[in-house]
Amino acid sequence: MHVCITLRFAGTRYHGFQVQKNALSVCEVLQNALESLYGVRPPVKGCSRTDSGVHALGYCVSYTQPKPIPPRKLPLAVNRFLPDDVRVTEAHRVPEDFHARYSAKSKEYIYRIHNSAVADPFQNGLCWRFPGPLDAGRMERAAQYLVGKHDFVSFMSSGSDIADTVRTVYFAHVRREGDDITFHVCADGYLYNMVRIFVGTLVEAGAGRMPPERMRDILEEKKRSLAGDTAPAQGLFLYKVNYSEEEAGNTQAAQEITAKQE
Amino acid sequence: MHVCITLRFAGTRYHGFQVQKNALSVCEVLQNALESLYGVRPPVKGCSRTDSGVHALGYCVSYTQPKPIPPRKLPLAVNRFLPDDVRVTEAHRVPEDFHARYSAKSKEYIYRIHNSAVADPFQNGLCWRFPGPLDAGRMERAAQYLVGKHDFVSFMSSGSDIADTVRTVYFAHVRREGDDITFHVCADGYLYNMVRIFVGTLVEAGAGRMPPERMRDILEEKKRSLAGDTAPAQGLFLYKVNYSEEEAGNTQAAQEITAKQE
Repeated sequence: MHVCITLRFAGTRYHGFQVQKNALSVCEVLQNALESLYGVRPPVKGCSRTDSGVHALGYCVSYTQPKPIPPRKLPLAVNRFLPDDVRVTEAHRVPEDFHARYSAKSKEYIYRIHNSAVADPFQNGLCWRFPGPLDAGRMERAAQYLVGKHDFVSFMSSGSDIADTVRTVYFAHVRREGDDITFHVCADGYLYNMVRIFVGTLVEAGAGRMPPERMRDILEEKKRSLAGDTAPAQGLFLYKVNYSEEEAGNTQAAQEITAKQE
Repeated sequence: MHVCITLRFAGTRYHGFQVQKNALSVCEVLQNALESLYGVRPPVKGCSRTDSGVHALGYCVSYTQPKPIPPRKLPLAVNRFLPDDVRVTEAHRVPEDFHARYSAKSKEYIYRIHNSAVADPFQNGLCWRFPGPLDAGRMERAAQYLVGKHDFVSFMSSGSDIADTVRTVYFAHVRREGDDITFHVCADGYLYNMVRIFVGTLVEAGAGRMPPERMRDILEEKKRSLAGDTAPAQGLFLYKVNYSEEEAGNTQAAQEITAKQE
C-alpha cells in the first residue's frame, strides 16, 4: 500500500531532510523508525530538500508500506520509534503513482521574525531575531511585487545549476502580531534559498533601507547582488504541501488555514 | 544602587533557580553574568525556589549593584553575558529594604497542558502532554474551590517542614484554546509542589475520574493522599510576581495582563 505521511519537526538538530554522510538528517531518523516498525527499511520520497536548521509543520513523505498498516494507525505506530522533535501527524493512502515531491502542485512556507531588542528564550532556533525597527506594512507592500509568474533568478543562491528559474508565486503576505512578524508564501516551486532571500530583501524594505517598489526592479534586473541577504535558516518553516489543483493557488483557503492553526 | 531585575528563562537545562552543588542553576549563570559585567560577584535574592525544569516568564531578582549602571541599560548589559535561554527583560531601581522574595505580595503561575494524542515537537519540555480527553469546563469548576484562604496541606509534597500551611488563592482559572489547556493561579504564597498538585488533581476532574466538587472535600480532609499526582515540572511557568497591594489580589488587572501577553 502506497501512503503519504505528514511530518512536523523541529529542524534544529538536523542537517536538513535528505540523508547526509556524517550528519544527522530527518530522513535518516524517519527511516530508522520505519525499519523498527516494518522490519525492513523502505525507500522514502520527501517533498523537498530542506536546509540545516529549517523546520516543518507539514512536510510530506511518500513510500510503499512493506506491510499494510491502516493509515489511521500509522501516526502512533511510527511515532513510537521517532525522537521527540519529529512527529507524524497524519497518514493517507495515495495512488501508486503519487510522489511527495513531483505530485505537489504548490508549497507554502512561513518565515518568522522576532522583532525585538531582547531575544526570547522560548524561541531560540525558531525565528530570526531582528532588533531594529521594522515596518511590516512596507514589507507587505514589497511582498506584493513577488506575486505572479516571474523569473526569480535574483532570488537564487549560487551553487544550483537549474536552467529554468521561472516560478509562480500564488500569494505572499507579511503580518505583525506584537513583536512577531510572519511572512507566508505559496508558490509552485522554489529556487535555492528563494524564501530566505525574499525575507532578507523584505527586511531591507521594512527597515527603510529601500523603497518597497524596488522589489520590481530587482526582479527585472535579474541580478542576485541587487536582492538582500539570505535570512537565517532557523526562521523558516515548511508549512504545507498542496497536491490538488484546487488547493494550489487558493489564497483564501490557505489563509483561513493559517489563521486557524496559529 | 539596589535594583530588581526580571528574568525570562527556559528552565529545561537548569536544576532550578537556586545554586546547587554539581548541577547547573539559573542563579549561577546569572551571577556569572553579573560578575563579568561588574568585575565582582554580587549576592542576589531570588523571588522563589523553582524546581528543575520549571520555566519563568517573570522571575524577579534583587541585588545591590557594585557599580551604578542605569536600570534602563541593565537588560542589554547583562544579556551580553547570559546564555540564550535566560534573558533579563526589565530592570528597576528599588528601595534599599526591597527583597525579591519577602517583598512579594503574591505570585502568579501558569501551567500548560498539551491535550493531544500526538506530541508537538515545538513544545518539548514546555508543557505536560496529556493524551486522553479532558473537559476544561470541569477543571475550571474544580479550580474555583481552591480560591480563598485555606489550609492547603493536602496539596503539599512531603519533605518540607513548614508549620503554617494556610495560604490565600486570589484566583484560579482553567481555559482551553485548541489542544492547549492553561491553568493560571495567583496566591500570596505556595507550599512545596502546590501548583503541580493542583494541576494533577484538576486533571482528575477533567478526565472524569472525580467530580469537581470533590476538591472541597480534599481541602477539608487535609490529606495529601486524597489529591491527585504531582504534575510534571516542565509544564510550570512562574508568570509574574506582584509587589504592590493593588496588584496582589486584583483578578481583573492580572487577567487583562495575561490576555495581552498571550
